[in-house]
Amino acid sequence: MTAKISENEYLGGRVRICQPVKGYRAGVDPVLLAASVPARSGQTVLELGIGVGTAALCLNARVPDLSLTGVEIQPDYADLARENGALNEADLKVIEADLEALPDQVKSTRFDHVIANPPYFDRAAGHAATDLGRETAMGEATPLKTWLEVAARRVAPKGYVSFIHRAERIQDLLRYLPRTLGSVQVQPLQPRVGRDAHLVILRARHSGKAPLRMHAPILMHEGHAHTSDAESYTAEIKAVLRDGASLGMPD
Amino acid sequence: MTAKISENEYLGGRVRICQPVKGYRAGVDPVLLAASVPARSGQTVLELGIGVGTAALCLNARVPDLSLTGVEIQPDYADLARENGALNEADLKVIEADLEALPDQVKSTRFDHVIANPPYFDRAAGHAATDLGRETAMGEATPLKTWLEVAARRVAPKGYVSFIHRAERIQDLLRYLPRTLGSVQVQPLQPRVGRDAHLVILRARHSGKAPLRMHAPILMHEGHAHTSDAESYTAEIKAVLRDGASLGMPD
Repeated sequence: MTAKISENEYLGGRVRICQPVKGYRAGVDPVLLAASVPARSGQTVLELGIGVGTAALCLNARVPDLSLTGVEIQPDYADLARENGALNEADLKVIEADLEALPDQVKSTRFDHVIANPPYFDRAAGHAATDLGRETAMGEATPLKTWLEVAARRVAPKGYVSFIHRAERIQDLLRYLPRTLGSVQVQPLQPRVGRDAHLVILRARHSGKAPLRMHAPILMHEGHAHTSDAESYTAEIKAVLRDGASLGMPD
Repeated sequence: MTAKISENEYLGGRVRICQPVKGYRAGVDPVLLAASVPARSGQTVLELGIGVGTAALCLNARVPDLSLTGVEIQPDYADLARENGALNEADLKVIEADLEALPDQVKSTRFDHVIANPPYFDRAAGHAATDLGRETAMGEATPLKTWLEVAARRVAPKGYVSFIHRAERIQDLLRYLPRTLGSVQVQPLQPRVGRDAHLVILRARHSGKAPLRMHAPILMHEGHAHTSDAESYTAEIKAVLRDGASLGMPD
């Protein structure tokens, strides 16, 4: 990869991620996703669209002895994810593939957890990103419906599927969630008191029969208005971002 | 009707509702629904499954000069809704019909607002109610998908559809919402701080193109635990239930 790369720290330095300076760069979203996954030591995890590996590696830092697999369509990101796996001494296998054409190695396996932070950009709504890597990461070359279908096929019986997405996509997440996934939990994330949710974590369980639960939103920032960035995080979010705590969603 | 009837007051006495002592009795849900509807003076409103008329008549008490139509499958409730319309001096026409077989009089009209508080009981999940009226009101003889499709067909271009339902049904509400309805707003209602949402108001607009918004939940009760019923309502809910205020959802 010839693009300029920087190394960034997550979870108070527990996780180190090399990523391109330009193009798609991980924000807090994969960190929040990782914090929400109810994984236990020894389990298997598949991340769809793993990018440079931020979510999988943050999860790995919280839960010991995970066996991680990532699928990534973009070769440069797949390479970086592999390097980041080694850098963080994770048991991470990265497979360069299109979600719609997974190799047998992945198609023959079912995982305790399937996680994804799918692209946020809705191609149908316009606005092309200027950087190609960024466009693939932010755009929807693969429809959200496909992400959910692949997740449902790859998750083991009683296993969990966890997605983070923009709150405005909750209709598509719920609409396209395959019927094999139940016990749905919707966890809105809200920037501040009284504001609309901006992000949502969707968790569903293979063969789950429990009624859907819509949890109280998790607040990202204290106060009613934006003052400064870093210092306004709520205690719960600080614990997630800096100390690698789990997000308070019931199992 | 031979069943014993009681008269109850809503909105601090602004609305009087006669309803059977046994069987389905309106709780706060139709009052909350009415408070959420962005109706303006002079508009037309269709309520699907109007029951004894609580939602339509609470809306009528807040917004002057509405022309109200209700559809109700159960003759006894339809009669009571008519009586309640007269009692509250509303311009309310009640049509006794199945949602799936609406008379031409309704099918030839499109309304500025279509509202519904559909039955909460999911027949597929078991538990038969003992009272027949209660079972029809609480059960799902007509699937939620049908309610949404009828609402979408009867709402005028740029008009609004407003439903209140149990929060666990948000997946079906969003999944079955016809594509002609957009600019979706999801308004969770939460019993107390930190609890899961128990109710949800879904608002959608015919031909609406805005992204979905998931609002911050509206809190029903103060405090973290149940102490007494009536006095624990939050100021916002008190204003709705006692003073007939509107619910703070953006238009």
